[in-house]
Amino acid sequence: MAKITEDIVKAKSAALILAALDSETKDSALRAMAKALDDNRHRILVANAKDVESSVKAGLSDALIKRLKVTDEKITGMIDGILDVVKLSDPVGETMSTVKLDKGLTLYQIKCPIGMLGVIFESRPDVVPQILSLCLKSGNGVAFKGGSEAANSNRILFDLLTKAAIAEGVPKDAFVLMETRDDISEILSLDQYIDLLIPRGSNAFVQYIQNNTKIPVLGHAAGICHIYVDDDADIDLAVRTTLDSKIQYPAVCNAVETLLVNSNIAEEFLPKMCAEFVKNGVEVRLDADAKVYVSKTLPTTKATAKDWDSEYNDLIISIKVVKDIAEAIDFINIHGSHHTDAIMTENKKKQAVFVKNVDSADVFINASTRFADGYRFGKGAEVGISTNKIHSRGPVGMEGLMIYKYVLIGNGQVVKDYVGNDARQFLHEQINKKYDL
Amino acid sequence: MAKITEDIVKAKSAALILAALDSETKDSALRAMAKALDDNRHRILVANAKDVESSVKAGLSDALIKRLKVTDEKITGMIDGILDVVKLSDPVGETMSTVKLDKGLTLYQIKCPIGMLGVIFESRPDVVPQILSLCLKSGNGVAFKGGSEAANSNRILFDLLTKAAIAEGVPKDAFVLMETRDDISEILSLDQYIDLLIPRGSNAFVQYIQNNTKIPVLGHAAGICHIYVDDDADIDLAVRTTLDSKIQYPAVCNAVETLLVNSNIAEEFLPKMCAEFVKNGVEVRLDADAKVYVSKTLPTTKATAKDWDSEYNDLIISIKVVKDIAEAIDFINIHGSHHTDAIMTENKKKQAVFVKNVDSADVFINASTRFADGYRFGKGAEVGISTNKIHSRGPVGMEGLMIYKYVLIGNGQVVKDYVGNDARQFLHEQINKKYDL
Repeated sequence: MAKITEDIVKAKSAALILAALDSETKDSALRAMAKALDDNRHRILVANAKDVESSVKAGLSDALIKRLKVTDEKITGMIDGILDVVKLSDPVGETMSTVKLDKGLTLYQIKCPIGMLGVIFESRPDVVPQILSLCLKSGNGVAFKGGSEAANSNRILFDLLTKAAIAEGVPKDAFVLMETRDDISEILSLDQYIDLLIPRGSNAFVQYIQNNTKIPVLGHAAGICHIYVDDDADIDLAVRTTLDSKIQYPAVCNAVETLLVNSNIAEEFLPKMCAEFVKNGVEVRLDADAKVYVSKTLPTTKATAKDWDSEYNDLIISIKVVKDIAEAIDFINIHGSHHTDAIMTENKKKQAVFVKNVDSADVFINASTRFADGYRFGKGAEVGISTNKIHSRGPVGMEGLMIYKYVLIGNGQVVKDYVGNDARQFLHEQINKKYDL
Repeated sequence: MAKITEDIVKAKSAALILAALDSETKDSALRAMAKALDDNRHRILVANAKDVESSVKAGLSDALIKRLKVTDEKITGMIDGILDVVKLSDPVGETMSTVKLDKGLTLYQIKCPIGMLGVIFESRPDVVPQILSLCLKSGNGVAFKGGSEAANSNRILFDLLTKAAIAEGVPKDAFVLMETRDDISEILSLDQYIDLLIPRGSNAFVQYIQNNTKIPVLGHAAGICHIYVDDDADIDLAVRTTLDSKIQYPAVCNAVETLLVNSNIAEEFLPKMCAEFVKNGVEVRLDADAKVYVSKTLPTTKATAKDWDSEYNDLIISIKVVKDIAEAIDFINIHGSHHTDAIMTENKKKQAVFVKNVDSADVFINASTRFADGYRFGKGAEVGISTNKIHSRGPVGMEGLMIYKYVLIGNGQVVKDYVGNDARQFLHEQINKKYDL
């Protein structure tokens, strides 16, 4: 058995103990974790310096090195993040519904952790405290893998945090740090032990995970987002929100990639919009119909069929003219990735039609697609953005790490009494009583 | 492309239209479906007689033929079932939460159908109207497969029901009837088109589905349920509920298979319990410790290691003596199928420990395991019982066919304004406003 498999088998058992841990112990563990980072700032900075040094040698881009580099300020941010999680209410044991089945026979639906998670973030070291604190508070065990370029930083952070938590009574095996790509390949077959995988990284990476495991995967492989500018749109509003959707941070999944424009408004809207794009360094790819409305002096290129299925993650936009909202909706449902799509229109009826018919996690009206984000949605920390059709959809916070169990409390009831000729009748009365054992 | 694949590609598109259908149209379609059955009782009985005849010829058991046989009374039951679904409130568009992100920028989380379902019930014809009406009301498309022995009955029911629904405005391709095993093999690879599979049948069949598809599967492969009789149990209560859990309907997944008995109470409890089992025709399999407490004159057999992982679905019970609640919980988490497990104890502390630590969909206190059922839980129709750790757990009703989307309604907000030095602050205020577009 590979070492990582052994660790995860142990973690699965420890996760059951973690699931039953009381709020006080979890919160004091979180506070101890925050303190451990504060007490060991120097050790963290030293470990991180090694990662930065090798990444500079390896020729990583300045942007990546900036993300990788831990500063004293970033450590303070990590500490604040952990203390924010202390403030969240403990979701475990929360009552979701209560039904009185009969006198003395009450059914509670209560929240509980999913169990054992696999979280693979090819990302900056700040994610280590974020994930560990969310998993701890929600009562989930986790096998975590961060970016390889941050190996030393991840290791010191993981060790400091888990040591502090264990000293407060958190089961010692519940958190596992994965350190190699082989570890990832290995855990994909552990569907008996891991209940949910949350991978973040390139589309190809997420797709590789999805295609090679039977474990449910929370996430999205692509973010091909659309804006449809309707003929009842406020043109200035549409230009402003579309520009923000494209240029505010083009490298991310909720940036717009394809703009659909109603033919009735194209003549007025497109010249303004395209001028703004060009002014802001965006490459504009036009279909033949759109081309008609845009001055030949403006530098644009031609959109091809391939553009409609492309996620640029860059300062590029493809533009297509459509005859009506129905064509726009069909196009979005076929070519989109069911992530985030927006309509710009002042017409309430069309807003409603768009919301009802667009099959996406986030459907926006007169606002930038860039709002599709856990922080902006008010979720606190974001675990991921999901384009799944079950469990969690859209930006996912701690609630995505929870499931429920049914607790039936009786005093000797048997089913025999509820069947046959003289059957007792169920009351099935929704009551407002919290589970309180 | 196989015919069934073509049908499902079409159904997926039709499901998008169905998802947006208004409540009035859906309810009039349901009423028309009920009427169609009432108007065509004779045709249904004739088709069913063919199925019954070939099943008798094929030598199917009386019990199976009884399940298969449609009577006038059963048709009335089907009609009543459809009309019950009319009474359910339409879940589509229901507001789950509303957050005011900022003045004029409101985020709604609203319920919507999952999309396209694959439902495989190796079962009686009554399931056809039940599944079609639930899918219609919840706005989901469905590819349905019933038991092969009911092929003629399923076909006539499906045709009558869909024809009636289509005449009322339901999109014509949203419902597909699968008729062969090949159809099932074929759809397992259609993860692009089918969002959720709900198989019911033998453990081997459900496992086959789970092992051969990337589509999420709602269900359970096994139902190895436990009762732990604690030393603080009321003995008469424990005998009564345990007996009901075993004998009330032993062929089903929520019947108890293994009984764990605290050693402090074994001497008093086991003789009574085993006498009741034997009196009711239950084969009693005892571990060595349990054997000590049971009279040699009582016919019992020896439990072996294999028993602890066996689902009998029959009048057999295995019994093990444990030293305390901790051993019982560990045993249940290792050998159980995370379906339904019960504790019999009057001790509130131990009740709470059992609920917190047993990792099962249904955790019962002082009540028969046989209550684990959608009807008894008050869900109306049951779609299945899930031992998944995400989305739905335990008995699943129509709510398990729903997911949600986020709708953000603004008036031109851009993310640029919420970042940087003069950033606007989000309000993130939970408000009590329903989505009303």
